[in-house]
Amino acid sequence: MNPHVFDQAIALTPTGDGHYAGAISPAYANMVGPFGGVTAATALNAVMLHPALLGEPLSLTVNFCAALADGPFTVSAQPVRTNRSTQHWVVAITQAGAGGEDETVVTASVVTAARRSTWSVDDEPMPVVPMPGDVPPYTVPSPVEWLRRYEMRPVEGAIPHTWDGSGSDSQTRLWMRDAVPRSLDLCGLAALADVFFPRVWLRRATRVPAGTVSMTVYFHAGSAQLAEVGHGWVLGQARAQAFRNGFFDQTALLWNEEGHLLCSSHQVVYYKE
Amino acid sequence: MNPHVFDQAIALTPTGDGHYAGAISPAYANMVGPFGGVTAATALNAVMLHPALLGEPLSLTVNFCAALADGPFTVSAQPVRTNRSTQHWVVAITQAGAGGEDETVVTASVVTAARRSTWSVDDEPMPVVPMPGDVPPYTVPSPVEWLRRYEMRPVEGAIPHTWDGSGSDSQTRLWMRDAVPRSLDLCGLAALADVFFPRVWLRRATRVPAGTVSMTVYFHAGSAQLAEVGHGWVLGQARAQAFRNGFFDQTALLWNEEGHLLCSSHQVVYYKE
Repeated sequence: MNPHVFDQAIALTPTGDGHYAGAISPAYANMVGPFGGVTAATALNAVMLHPALLGEPLSLTVNFCAALADGPFTVSAQPVRTNRSTQHWVVAITQAGAGGEDETVVTASVVTAARRSTWSVDDEPMPVVPMPGDVPPYTVPSPVEWLRRYEMRPVEGAIPHTWDGSGSDSQTRLWMRDAVPRSLDLCGLAALADVFFPRVWLRRATRVPAGTVSMTVYFHAGSAQLAEVGHGWVLGQARAQAFRNGFFDQTALLWNEEGHLLCSSHQVVYYKE
Repeated sequence: MNPHVFDQAIALTPTGDGHYAGAISPAYANMVGPFGGVTAATALNAVMLHPALLGEPLSLTVNFCAALADGPFTVSAQPVRTNRSTQHWVVAITQAGAGGEDETVVTASVVTAARRSTWSVDDEPMPVVPMPGDVPPYTVPSPVEWLRRYEMRPVEGAIPHTWDGSGSDSQTRLWMRDAVPRSLDLCGLAALADVFFPRVWLRRATRVPAGTVSMTVYFHAGSAQLAEVGHGWVLGQARAQAFRNGFFDQTALLWNEEGHLLCSSHQVVYYKE
């Protein structure tokens, strides 16, 4: 059996000293460069594959410095501080530039932690929405390639079908999962956290150039809880808080079907005009 | 006139190649190490002082790897990618360890941007709360030193006076500003974003060891808008979304008195038990 298309896209070959070789997958192509969620998952995967890894991801921040070009890239993942129960990683993705020299296209940081069971509570209950079986699939007109890799069933704030400047709200809620069955894991969740189309398109019902500059994921679930999700649906909710002079922020929450919060995620996004 | 105590605390002396020398200020001492907000502001200050700086801060992520020890430290701020209108920085703070070798105590990333006026809107209106002149000051019993550096007037979710396990909510809203007048700026705002006491103390009305692991600030205001705030009050709102196995997340918003959103900020925080 071939690996899942997502696992192919984030696949890395260790080349020593925390360096890894990867290649852009055309299956996740976006308008310019690849889907940012797959890039975030690839940065995280370098940490997951590192032999010195302690625990599981708690926090991931990915800064998109430039569009990745088709072809090979290098990921560096270095543990810069290992404590008793947490570990701090500095990650970078580089590609050969026009002149052949290495250029930084992504910087990232990851905190991993060996977690213990403690008093726990969720303070963001999953909103009451129709269950995925009751929501019709949504077909995005002329989707970019990566959108075909996911099943999406929006219950609120779908990508507009008409760009008439009528928007008044920036909130989207949608059920989502891989189009080809794949059991959810930490890299898969990191990618799902970036699935939401630019909030400015919804808020203005106007399509303007936009792209994520920096995103952060705080993982509330570990790999065991995600494995229980299996190929189940994840409910995602995203909205903007401010649009200001070329950049807006997005705050997102992702729950499993039982209403357990899997992660919270935030990003700041460039937009034009 | 002596510099403001905050400016003394974040002061850095350039030593070349994006390296800076600083020293821990006892004026912002926390229970263990300094107030994290001042550490975040110090990391940002290294970028602000760098001669290659393009634009103003858009995004700041600070990972707290270990408690900073009293005494000197070194900040390194390196621009790893400069685009037409954005610039990506990798920052680290190091201190000499027990054996004399340099140890990483903070990693950080900063994105700066040259912003242009565009269509803009705030989607998080400031909550309706009493204005600061109508809110009595709140005295924290036995405050740590850094708390004396700020005036705080909580309108909701003050730090509990009795630790009786009765908590049911994690939201705090408070007016805040420097105790000694200082005009607000980007470093000052970064510090204010970390003023909120650990959400787990409020949610459980139980005082357990807790400390920020990673924090992110998205700047919606630039230095000109912050200068207009001057020594005015800032309304901060913070709440947790999930407490899970030793870590909770916090999501925060900060407005000026006129209700303009100055920044959104997020963090993940360790807690015991």
